[in-house]
Amino acid sequence: MSWEEYVRKVVPYTPGEQPKIKNIIKLNTNENPYPPSPLVYKAYEETELSDFRKYPDPTCSVLVDSIASFYDVKKENVFVGVGSDDVLSMAFLTFFNSDKPVLFPDITYSFYDVWADLYRIPYKQMPLKDDFTIDPADYYGENGGVVIANPNAPTGVKLPLDAIEDIISHNRDVVVIIDEAYVDFGAESALPLIDKYDNLLVVRTYSKSRSLAGLRIGYAFGCEKLIKYILDAKFSFNSYTMNMPSLILGAAAMNDREYFEETTAKVVATRERVKVQLKELGFEFGDSRANFIFARHPEKAGKDIFDYLRAHDIIVRRFDKPRINEYLRISIGTDEEMDRLIEVLKEYLGK
Amino acid sequence: MSWEEYVRKVVPYTPGEQPKIKNIIKLNTNENPYPPSPLVYKAYEETELSDFRKYPDPTCSVLVDSIASFYDVKKENVFVGVGSDDVLSMAFLTFFNSDKPVLFPDITYSFYDVWADLYRIPYKQMPLKDDFTIDPADYYGENGGVVIANPNAPTGVKLPLDAIEDIISHNRDVVVIIDEAYVDFGAESALPLIDKYDNLLVVRTYSKSRSLAGLRIGYAFGCEKLIKYILDAKFSFNSYTMNMPSLILGAAAMNDREYFEETTAKVVATRERVKVQLKELGFEFGDSRANFIFARHPEKAGKDIFDYLRAHDIIVRRFDKPRINEYLRISIGTDEEMDRLIEVLKEYLGK
Repeated sequence: MSWEEYVRKVVPYTPGEQPKIKNIIKLNTNENPYPPSPLVYKAYEETELSDFRKYPDPTCSVLVDSIASFYDVKKENVFVGVGSDDVLSMAFLTFFNSDKPVLFPDITYSFYDVWADLYRIPYKQMPLKDDFTIDPADYYGENGGVVIANPNAPTGVKLPLDAIEDIISHNRDVVVIIDEAYVDFGAESALPLIDKYDNLLVVRTYSKSRSLAGLRIGYAFGCEKLIKYILDAKFSFNSYTMNMPSLILGAAAMNDREYFEETTAKVVATRERVKVQLKELGFEFGDSRANFIFARHPEKAGKDIFDYLRAHDIIVRRFDKPRINEYLRISIGTDEEMDRLIEVLKEYLGK
Repeated sequence: MSWEEYVRKVVPYTPGEQPKIKNIIKLNTNENPYPPSPLVYKAYEETELSDFRKYPDPTCSVLVDSIASFYDVKKENVFVGVGSDDVLSMAFLTFFNSDKPVLFPDITYSFYDVWADLYRIPYKQMPLKDDFTIDPADYYGENGGVVIANPNAPTGVKLPLDAIEDIISHNRDVVVIIDEAYVDFGAESALPLIDKYDNLLVVRTYSKSRSLAGLRIGYAFGCEKLIKYILDAKFSFNSYTMNMPSLILGAAAMNDREYFEETTAKVVATRERVKVQLKELGFEFGDSRANFIFARHPEKAGKDIFDYLRAHDIIVRRFDKPRINEYLRISIGTDEEMDRLIEVLKEYLGK
């Protein structure tokens, strides 16, 4: 007998590359190309470092209040965590305790099956249609919960709000998680539905539209009862997950609506321009509503394009998985970065 | 049927009070009375805030390297997490998957049974002896793992290293966790044993001796195989748990050995002086080796003393639990804070 027999063995998630090379154009992890809000810089300067000797506020009130205020909900409707991964992982642990399978698409955020494996939650992956859209009817059957990313990752394709509501209303006896990591770039949020459906959890992140991936802040909305349950589980896991810089700087970022709207609009404008250029180069892709474009070229192997870009100091993301292995997920960078991308792709394609 | 039937229901841990009142003397959560190292201030100023738009390094190399260097171990022997609570919780999830009960004392860190409940891990609490010491022989029987805090919390009593080794060597077929949150204030670490016992995990924190509770940094040492398993679980839970401020400032704090030794020595000196004063006032307590004293007064009710102190703007910690409900856990503050404590206690006792 060895202690190794009792180890929970898992196949870990592989995060996107974080290269330490300078001057590389990093279009592989969907970060925001713009820096955090000026209010974040101001709050950083005003922070009293000697306070760091003390524990942070476990209720995270400064952060929770700023989020509740921005979205015009009660603070009892808000949960915060160490990135949306922490929020989602806690939600899986809290809400998915049935023997029936949790349902999510076959092509979606690659952490869902990892969490299900970690917590021994049964699950079933429902194939997307050929155009990468979701058929709501696939989620009508008996199940232990539903998770939908909207817009979906890594496809960028959105589901209209009435289809989302259709899925929620067909699943009133389980929790439905709508993962809206990318919603600020052009999809409709399910947030207004939390008053109508007590089984709905809407999950968000600071890592994309708030330019603060480095702070690790995620949040979620739900009815008071739902939020209370996930808070109880979170307090059983770790009372103090959000450190002081996250609380202080996260609140400051949320308070700057103007900067948020300005920078997300810039990312969207760049994306739409790049779509036109990629189309001209023969690339094929769905109508991305996220801060990335998920594209393939009918005449070129995905791995070839990836390698060529990498050799020219541009990193994009590729998934070695069925149905999507010819695709590249290209994050939207600054206009200059995207110009360079198009230039290198033109070279590659001999155009 | 309702989604509530599938909710993982738990009794959450109640963290110590974090009052927002100014000028209160806060001796209730074992924080360090001294601010972080000057190197932390320097690193804070030099931090490039625009980098926060990017994800942090998931391997946490700057932090892991500084810890490995300080303790003269390989980086493959080091695991880091969001406070030692995150490290311990991940260790419970990773290593305690047996049907046999995990063993820990009846009086110890109150999160152990909370994690066991959260993850549905069977456990058995072994009573401390009347003098609050641990009998190693209690941990010889068949079990699914062992967790010992050394020095123990909230008693402050330490177990000698040979007794710790005795427990580890009697449990080679399960993982033994030694939680050394308070070890820097006067107990002997089990760290040198990680090369000899592949079933040993030694857990530490930045929240006490490193004056950085507000950043949430914990770490652990073990053989390479053990660390690999917990890393796999952690990467399945959340790839990016440590945010940029934690990585940068945590590394800076670890690099300042002199400040660390100086401030821990100051806390220890204050504790020893306060022990003498408390004894003169009739208090009874074990030989605390932590940054707190766990004491009772034979003639006064714990709750009475607690309330009197609270009314005089001094907060200590009290646990409403069997065997220890007459005790107060008094964190070691600055000399001035402890002078005020003694003054108020003298008033209370009419001395």
